[in-house]
Amino acid sequence: MNNPRKRRRARKTGAVAKVALPQLERRVLRNRFAPVEPLDEEQINLIHEASMTLLEEQGIEVLGDMALDLFRKAGADVDSAGVVRMDRGLLMEAIASAPEKFSVTPRNDANTLQVGEDVINFGMVSGPPNVHDNINGRRMGNIRDFESLVKFGQYFNVITFFGNQAVAPTDLPVNTRHLDTLLASIVYSDKPFFSTGIGAGRSLDAINMCAIARGISVEELAASPSAMTNINVNSPRKLDDSMAYGAMQLATHGQPVSVTPFTLMGAMTPATLGGALVQQNAEALLGIALLQFTRPGTPVIYGGFTSNVDMRSGSPAFGTPENAMANLAGGQLSRFYKLPHRTSACNASNAVDLQAVYETQMALWGSVMGHGNLIYHTAGWLEGGLVASFEKVIVDCEMLQHMTQFLQPVKIDLDEIGLDAMREVGPGGHFFGCEHTMARYKDAFYQPFLSDWQNHENWVASGSKDATQRATEIWPKILQEFEAPPLDPAIKEELEAYVVKRKEELGKEEPALEPVLI
Amino acid sequence: MNNPRKRRRARKTGAVAKVALPQLERRVLRNRFAPVEPLDEEQINLIHEASMTLLEEQGIEVLGDMALDLFRKAGADVDSAGVVRMDRGLLMEAIASAPEKFSVTPRNDANTLQVGEDVINFGMVSGPPNVHDNINGRRMGNIRDFESLVKFGQYFNVITFFGNQAVAPTDLPVNTRHLDTLLASIVYSDKPFFSTGIGAGRSLDAINMCAIARGISVEELAASPSAMTNINVNSPRKLDDSMAYGAMQLATHGQPVSVTPFTLMGAMTPATLGGALVQQNAEALLGIALLQFTRPGTPVIYGGFTSNVDMRSGSPAFGTPENAMANLAGGQLSRFYKLPHRTSACNASNAVDLQAVYETQMALWGSVMGHGNLIYHTAGWLEGGLVASFEKVIVDCEMLQHMTQFLQPVKIDLDEIGLDAMREVGPGGHFFGCEHTMARYKDAFYQPFLSDWQNHENWVASGSKDATQRATEIWPKILQEFEAPPLDPAIKEELEAYVVKRKEELGKEEPALEPVLI
Repeated sequence: MNNPRKRRRARKTGAVAKVALPQLERRVLRNRFAPVEPLDEEQINLIHEASMTLLEEQGIEVLGDMALDLFRKAGADVDSAGVVRMDRGLLMEAIASAPEKFSVTPRNDANTLQVGEDVINFGMVSGPPNVHDNINGRRMGNIRDFESLVKFGQYFNVITFFGNQAVAPTDLPVNTRHLDTLLASIVYSDKPFFSTGIGAGRSLDAINMCAIARGISVEELAASPSAMTNINVNSPRKLDDSMAYGAMQLATHGQPVSVTPFTLMGAMTPATLGGALVQQNAEALLGIALLQFTRPGTPVIYGGFTSNVDMRSGSPAFGTPENAMANLAGGQLSRFYKLPHRTSACNASNAVDLQAVYETQMALWGSVMGHGNLIYHTAGWLEGGLVASFEKVIVDCEMLQHMTQFLQPVKIDLDEIGLDAMREVGPGGHFFGCEHTMARYKDAFYQPFLSDWQNHENWVASGSKDATQRATEIWPKILQEFEAPPLDPAIKEELEAYVVKRKEELGKEEPALEPVLI
Repeated sequence: MNNPRKRRRARKTGAVAKVALPQLERRVLRNRFAPVEPLDEEQINLIHEASMTLLEEQGIEVLGDMALDLFRKAGADVDSAGVVRMDRGLLMEAIASAPEKFSVTPRNDANTLQVGEDVINFGMVSGPPNVHDNINGRRMGNIRDFESLVKFGQYFNVITFFGNQAVAPTDLPVNTRHLDTLLASIVYSDKPFFSTGIGAGRSLDAINMCAIARGISVEELAASPSAMTNINVNSPRKLDDSMAYGAMQLATHGQPVSVTPFTLMGAMTPATLGGALVQQNAEALLGIALLQFTRPGTPVIYGGFTSNVDMRSGSPAFGTPENAMANLAGGQLSRFYKLPHRTSACNASNAVDLQAVYETQMALWGSVMGHGNLIYHTAGWLEGGLVASFEKVIVDCEMLQHMTQFLQPVKIDLDEIGLDAMREVGPGGHFFGCEHTMARYKDAFYQPFLSDWQNHENWVASGSKDATQRATEIWPKILQEFEAPPLDPAIKEELEAYVVKRKEELGKEEPALEPVLI
């Protein structure tokens, strides 16, 4: 174990040893395997038909007159209770105007996000109100920890995008905190990020700040999107105005939106995969149609967040076999509609423990084998989404590197096989010193940064540290050595000025709810 | 946290509360997905050709005159150094005589093992010299712990076979301990087991005791095998006489053998997947040919144990991306030769921690998606195989249940979808109380025995126990409540008498090395 005195001193002076973790290079990751598809054609058709019936007969309640107007104008039926019913022909026509793939360009275009086809992207945790690490314990989300999570996401090459908000900075005023998180997301990272889409005003700020960050106009941004959000449909069958309007504002400017029904089987949907998929499908497609009515061709993402609850307690569960299956099935449905797919790798554990890992692995394998294009919450998610965990970020990024390496093509040719080396070594020998090995040993195999492969004696001699303890040693070093990616000081100044101006404008007011349509 | 006084008292009196874990029912598990195949036809052919070249030109050193005689008689070339070289025509002819699938019948034929096709079987850890649990710590393997591991494997429905030996009972004499482990395997379990095949005498004891256990003759056993072993080829290219003879003895009596080269990339093979697969292939096929020469039609299993070493230290690594890939590729090769496939789900962690789980998951998914028919070491393996861990058994069986549930077919029809329930609940409602849910809630979703889905407050109130601590509470209860499956007292007596007689016969002598061919 650590010498506690030594440790205290190190923490006081901030003298944390520098670390350069062995990381895989940044790359566009493609899943070279055919997607694993649990449903047959008949089942897919049945889900499609039932969700069309649901939309035609029962409809979905939509809050917000501007959204209802758009539906009405497009030809949908809107009743006095604000329930939208849509003919399947109209719906499918709208869906067809969405692109099958697109890209999102952050301030560093080397980090451009490819969305669609067989490209797999891993994203940071988003949404938690709390944060945890094993040094400082559990606490309410705050801007300092938000920044740390942005730094982690920037640091790890395997992370290619950020979700809406890695943790809620609850220490800042609700009406302007999105400006602080937008600024931090742009300053500490040059990777693409989703931003909070609660109300149109926040989306507009994201649009403006993304344009500033890239030194282009808002009009130019429409042709080369940077801002994006994920909205949830409140299952069952309810789309809130703040969500609808935040999304519509982005769509107006040609920025991508992921529409993700929050469908926990047994609570928000029937306690069956079929029921959940039908409802997810109806809700996601209606949201996507709204965005196509707002601006045809808006890049959209078919989102799935279908997991189940514990039927004994009602508690949400993630990383269950049913969740993994839903991730695969959601991929099939997204391909049926020729839309990119968003899924998640979550867990419901209260600690960074065995459960956290096996649940995450179930959800992750379901997501990857189902060709999830954007896999949300792959680093740092804990407690069913109530906590962003620093140690979980570390173990997750290790697991994502494993998965990335696993998906690389295998090179097999006569040179790689090395029959000559086998001739040289002979029965009972070993290959450590032979030329074939020497020429390859540096890059022969994936090198993890969290795994400890020492033998038992050496492991004990070096402190018997388990992987959680090692993770607790890694993340402070990352924060210590973190260097923000270069940003033109003039742009930074302009962003800061924008934030100051908007905070003045807003005062204690909420940002605008309704979108400015152009 | 636990009250330590209370805990001590409970342990003193042995007053452990009874537990009935929610288990999935015993079933024949099939992988309904097409196998994931990383290699293309050209790569498979290249591996096949190169391994044939290796066998023809370089050959494999075989110890043991009786084995060499068999090779010679079959038409292989045996040189003065005992190196066997085989023409590919001869080899492929021998391989072709092995069955594509078969079954193994233990004393309870409800637990018959299906080997081949798309059937997936999960087996207990085998081989470790040490054992560990979080109550008693790390210790040398012993018969008491061996029995406990048999009990765990019997208890969990998800385990359908035992590997050669769950832990070595190092407290017993080397020359007769196989008799004690055979007896314990039969008394405490009615599931099929591999037994140690080091030398022919041990195999013959397994054959005799399996026949007694089933109340049939050794001749009858040939038509309905019960005994089996796994042998390793000592890579590179060396087959020991004790392994060869133990396997040949089983083959003589029509009992199945798995032949598994021990091919750690970078140490025992070139530091490439291609090199390792070529060597694995040559070594496995030569061993299988020997068994077909011994008795054509002997049920055999194509074994793969290809992982890599850490090239910086030479330490073995498991559950790496390369290991997962080798598990998939091994499946392709076994299908190429129309043989059942054995693979493994190992890890190299020193503790039951995050690493132990993520490495196991990598290897397990590679094994399952590659259609491993017999997946070795899926419960309890730790420290790269140097320790059998009780807590690891618990978390592994939970993960195996997850995987089993994940592989179940999905039922989707109009009744399951439940449009009526959606009509009934309406926008913004919930499905907890509706009839559709009430009719299904008991069996709607997989119920884990290790996961804790309480919210943070309740979890803290109940002791903030992580999954490892919960596992430490579970395994003593299993041992406490364990009941051995019924066994005819006359058979038990006969088995015990056999063990007594054989121990007398052996005295301090090793069991016979050479097989008795019939």
